[in-house]
Amino acid sequence: MSLQKPKGTSDLLPGTVEKWQYLEAQARDLCRRFHYKEVRTPIFEHTEVFARGVGETTDIVQKEMYTFNDKGDRSITLRPEGTAGVVRAFVENKLYGEPDLTKLYYIGPMFRYEQPQAGRQRQFHQFGIEAFGAVDPSLDAEVVALGYTFYKELGLKDVTVEINSVGTPAIREAFRSKLQAFFAPVKDQLCKDCQTRFDRNPMRLLDCKVDQKFCEGAPELLEDLDEECRTHFDAVLGYLEAMKIPYRINPRLVRGLDYYTHTAFEYKAAGIGAIDTIGGGGRYNGLVSQFGGPDQSGVGLGLGLERILIVLEAQGVDIPAPKPLDVYLIGLGEAAEKEITRLVHELRVKGVMAEKDYQGRKMKAQMKSADRTNATYVAILGDDELARGEITVKAMATGDQQAVALTELADWILKTK
Amino acid sequence: MSLQKPKGTSDLLPGTVEKWQYLEAQARDLCRRFHYKEVRTPIFEHTEVFARGVGETTDIVQKEMYTFNDKGDRSITLRPEGTAGVVRAFVENKLYGEPDLTKLYYIGPMFRYEQPQAGRQRQFHQFGIEAFGAVDPSLDAEVVALGYTFYKELGLKDVTVEINSVGTPAIREAFRSKLQAFFAPVKDQLCKDCQTRFDRNPMRLLDCKVDQKFCEGAPELLEDLDEECRTHFDAVLGYLEAMKIPYRINPRLVRGLDYYTHTAFEYKAAGIGAIDTIGGGGRYNGLVSQFGGPDQSGVGLGLGLERILIVLEAQGVDIPAPKPLDVYLIGLGEAAEKEITRLVHELRVKGVMAEKDYQGRKMKAQMKSADRTNATYVAILGDDELARGEITVKAMATGDQQAVALTELADWILKTK
Repeated sequence: MSLQKPKGTSDLLPGTVEKWQYLEAQARDLCRRFHYKEVRTPIFEHTEVFARGVGETTDIVQKEMYTFNDKGDRSITLRPEGTAGVVRAFVENKLYGEPDLTKLYYIGPMFRYEQPQAGRQRQFHQFGIEAFGAVDPSLDAEVVALGYTFYKELGLKDVTVEINSVGTPAIREAFRSKLQAFFAPVKDQLCKDCQTRFDRNPMRLLDCKVDQKFCEGAPELLEDLDEECRTHFDAVLGYLEAMKIPYRINPRLVRGLDYYTHTAFEYKAAGIGAIDTIGGGGRYNGLVSQFGGPDQSGVGLGLGLERILIVLEAQGVDIPAPKPLDVYLIGLGEAAEKEITRLVHELRVKGVMAEKDYQGRKMKAQMKSADRTNATYVAILGDDELARGEITVKAMATGDQQAVALTELADWILKTK
Repeated sequence: MSLQKPKGTSDLLPGTVEKWQYLEAQARDLCRRFHYKEVRTPIFEHTEVFARGVGETTDIVQKEMYTFNDKGDRSITLRPEGTAGVVRAFVENKLYGEPDLTKLYYIGPMFRYEQPQAGRQRQFHQFGIEAFGAVDPSLDAEVVALGYTFYKELGLKDVTVEINSVGTPAIREAFRSKLQAFFAPVKDQLCKDCQTRFDRNPMRLLDCKVDQKFCEGAPELLEDLDEECRTHFDAVLGYLEAMKIPYRINPRLVRGLDYYTHTAFEYKAAGIGAIDTIGGGGRYNGLVSQFGGPDQSGVGLGLGLERILIVLEAQGVDIPAPKPLDVYLIGLGEAAEKEITRLVHELRVKGVMAEKDYQGRKMKAQMKSADRTNATYVAILGDDELARGEITVKAMATGDQQAVALTELADWILKTK
């Protein structure tokens, strides 16, 4: 048992890992075009970073963190999400002193101790962005648009944006009491999680995944927004329309994190059942100052890569196949085999994707191996050819054969690609 | 204090992170050409995986691991190196059943609780490869050659390969007693670490970093090799010569890990002081069966990316600069600013790397921002031009200006790249 991978983790092996490489390459190229630059924060942080950044009252901090003491007796936590560490790094490295916005992205593993199920792993992977330094609603819209474009470029179908404004902390404080008054008569009938949320985070009652029937007729935060919040929200929606990003206002959308202000949004995918949220984000204007920085605003998103792969699978969307092997080299006879070891190295250094046998197998077994690796060419060297300084190259698709000088082989293959 | 990054970890920010992206892209392309495929194992494993895989007697397992109990009371350890997890995954996923070799690479964070210093972080990063399924010495040579080629393609100067054969476990067992007999008279004068190594791992006495003077005249394992070990070692050296990989035999090279058999090697770099090892590896023929797999052999290497960056810096080797921004868009007037938000999105979706202002700054400040982002073009839209459906594009290098139709802008920019 203890020599198996930990529960809720995965080994990403050849055949699967290429999908991850593709997702990541797409995310990186998207961020390049949108002018977001990568940031890499540590895999673990002082526990205080998440208590402060994610919120003491959240399910994550209350129940789901991998927290332990290191050998120096500091409380350390494996990051359960990406934003808190990035905000900590933004403040600690004084990036707020830059004249332009700081637009960052990250891709990497996160850790939550939850019951594993489809699309929910204890080690999972997120792609996220964080943009600091502007309250302009065009920035909220850009963040929403970036996530939507990511899904669309991957080929996901029927992705919808749900969006809401969660106002300011003051507006939410007032709304919280209103919500508690509304739910108080049915408090005993709420699901177990919601009963504990009633006091510590009543906003979460609105997006109960167990039973939505008690939410009928609940007060809506959107109606309590002040003029400034309303103007900001309308401007965000206007930009989304200009960018042709389809959206639906969902007044019950609150997200599981404490730090959002103004814009909150989620992406929903069709065809994967009840848990259909595949990413989300929002604006967090107070978070930078909570970390000891100046009063600078932020807005960001986080997308779960496991969830995206599930949707791609469910919707039958293909991912481009990796490039096949250029050439499989076969040596016949002792001298030729030695030369093949030298030659395969020369080809690789010159840019050719090349492979050979290492198991002393017969020619027929080596040809099968070339087939399995989907090689474009097989090149066969016998002792006679070696003496002439040539090698026989066979195109696997057509069966065409020709002799090529050993010294020309790399160039010959690179030219035909 | 607790809102700062943990001791021995780093934030990789824009300006630095590009070097990491470059190293990784180089490693990935190298592995593609050498036909190694990526594997990603979990960030943490059951502690037993490292006790078994790295060796109970090693410094790593004895002193340096981040080990803790998870909420299910399982002993979990953040991976201190890459090989044990990959071997565990190789066995657990039964990759040994494949007819061809399994050639894998990994890139990622590792964790050791050590005193941080230049090139030694508590979270550090390794690029490694593992090749399973062949005892052929050409595979040992390939692994050595891959690492050497990586350094060379990055532009590192004066990298040397040091190589040794550490024989079989039986030969080492006999050699261990011989070593203890040799060092016994000076045991009390050895450094503190070596005194504890004397019993649990006397091989490590040979590569003491504190004082080499007691090693003068120590017995050499190379002289105790049997016929099979000697033949294997000579064949590896012969292949390295054929591939023109310069090497030096170092009979005292033992590596800090217990699992090596036959070939062990290290790469040394010039110009970075006393701790000049920048990577290493070797063959580990017993490790797969220790994990419950069949008697399949393996050979691999691990390279520290932090160390490589230090050498690149010390040797003044430049890394290619990332591509500059294609276009910075400026809107003058309310309608034009709105159109810019739409247009910047359209350009990005069409493949252009584009940026705009989000802070309501004056044109002069926006031009400065365009300069800072090193934009190839600035495109300026006033309300008059918007009415005509045009935008003025200025090449920053030459100052040349021209009007381009709004609908043509993306194509126009992509064509001039």
